[in-house]
Amino acid sequence: MSTALQKTIDIEIRVRYAEVDAMGVLHHSRYWTYFEMGRTELLRSQGFAYRDLESEGTFFVVARCSAKFRAPAGYDDVLVLKTQVTKMRQVKIDHAYELRRKSDGVLIATGETTLACVDRQGRVIPIPARMRLED
Amino acid sequence: MSTALQKTIDIEIRVRYAEVDAMGVLHHSRYWTYFEMGRTELLRSQGFAYRDLESEGTFFVVARCSAKFRAPAGYDDVLVLKTQVTKMRQVKIDHAYELRRKSDGVLIATGETTLACVDRQGRVIPIPARMRLED
Amino acid sequence: MSTALQKTIDIEIRVRYAEVDAMGVLHHSRYWTYFEMGRTELLRSQGFAYRDLESEGTFFVVARCSAKFRAPAGYDDVLVLKTQVTKMRQVKIDHAYELRRKSDGVLIATGETTLACVDRQGRVIPIPARMRLED
Amino acid sequence: MSTALQKTIDIEIRVRYAEVDAMGVLHHSRYWTYFEMGRTELLRSQGFAYRDLESEGTFFVVARCSAKFRAPAGYDDVLVLKTQVTKMRQVKIDHAYELRRKSDGVLIATGETTLACVDRQGRVIPIPARMRLED
Repeated sequence: MSTALQKTIDIEIRVRYAEVDAMGVLHHSRYWTYFEMGRTELLRSQGFAYRDLESEGTFFVVARCSAKFRAPAGYDDVLVLKTQVTKMRQVKIDHAYELRRKSDGVLIATGETTLACVDRQGRVIPIPARMRLED
Repeated sequence: MSTALQKTIDIEIRVRYAEVDAMGVLHHSRYWTYFEMGRTELLRSQGFAYRDLESEGTFFVVARCSAKFRAPAGYDDVLVLKTQVTKMRQVKIDHAYELRRKSDGVLIATGETTLACVDRQGRVIPIPARMRLED
Repeated sequence: MSTALQKTIDIEIRVRYAEVDAMGVLHHSRYWTYFEMGRTELLRSQGFAYRDLESEGTFFVVARCSAKFRAPAGYDDVLVLKTQVTKMRQVKIDHAYELRRKSDGVLIATGETTLACVDRQGRVIPIPARMRLED
Repeated sequence: MSTALQKTIDIEIRVRYAEVDAMGVLHHSRYWTYFEMGRTELLRSQGFAYRDLESEGTFFVVARCSAKFRAPAGYDDVLVLKTQVTKMRQVKIDHAYELRRKSDGVLIATGETTLACVDRQGRVIPIPARMRLED
């Protein structure tokens, strides 16, 4: 039953050298890749591979996003990313993200995204029933 | 005089192959690099090189950001990015961004960022007087 | 006639902030994106859009590559990239690249790639006749 | 004693969505970031954090590199990267890389890099004695 689907997951990510900028800190464009990894792993914990969803013609595209950067993360820092489904509607899913440094728990960033479910041609379609979470 | 400083600029950017994803569209993480290019060129049009500011110990870090993705952009598309200063306070600057496809004017994305002015150690400092825009 | 096809092109690229690393210099992983831009523009100068080739089912994949990094490039540097077809065989094309800083002509890097022509399934196919250069 | 230093390490890397291109395969520019991760982890296994080396003023820059791409890697594939020191001279280190898909052992790519040891100003310096490997 859909109520059994997990709504949150924590993953660890180590900051790569090529991800920091001239100031030596994680560049703000890289966080979105981390958040995407969080979504992939949350799906996997629910029994879905996003790769398979795409093969079947179900795509999720980012329709809007926002983030607050609260403290810098440096090269080689190990971060813990919490990814959470905050709302699921007919064709859209909202996620919230919390990124902390593992060593001391310092909050690095928070973020939110809204994804739309689309087909191969980019037309909005309903989220597959088996993926639906109850509130 | 600071009132002479330009508040908006349009630049053209061609989408690179490595910037699109498996869906063939510009990945949402790349927009932030485009927006950063807009800020760099807006500064340049005002007579500043961000590189020199950093050499002098004045850094601008992204404190928060948000975007709405309204239509996909594909590989090799030429986009026009409008970058605008919307608010300047003692230690922070807000920018707004509008990204359109050049060929047909279609709105691809809009975005906003808030930058904080910091020193080499990341401590918040006032924006240099010569950079201040009057409202 | 194919003999009329241009074999070399120079393009200018300004180094983006997100492309430099903690040492403040262009990260070695970014050069390949520049070289790819050179190939795209060389094709365009020959009357081809790589985007259209892909739509028609003709893809070029990098089979091997090498580079020497001779001097660092910094953020905001304007570079001049020379891209040249050095050899064209039945199913492969070799390119050579030379990247210089525009302001003083300093050689930043040289590189070579071998591309293989493949179809949508990744099977090697002959390079289309209209794209063939005579030696 | 330096003879005790490990010369090879295997790490696992899962291909991220933002790392594949429009063909759905890992873009050739991303491999260098993976190879860099391999070097970081090999150093760590030897008791060094590259981050600390940089803090102390010892930097390693890529002077040359090459790779052969033998089979495509797709989004979400788990890869195993073997990183090996193949030669260490006074101021330079050579590494070799072998990247395989974990599920079936297929060879995805091989690569080599030569790093030069430099100080904060980019001047070539001897590799610190405690890092030296005997042949």
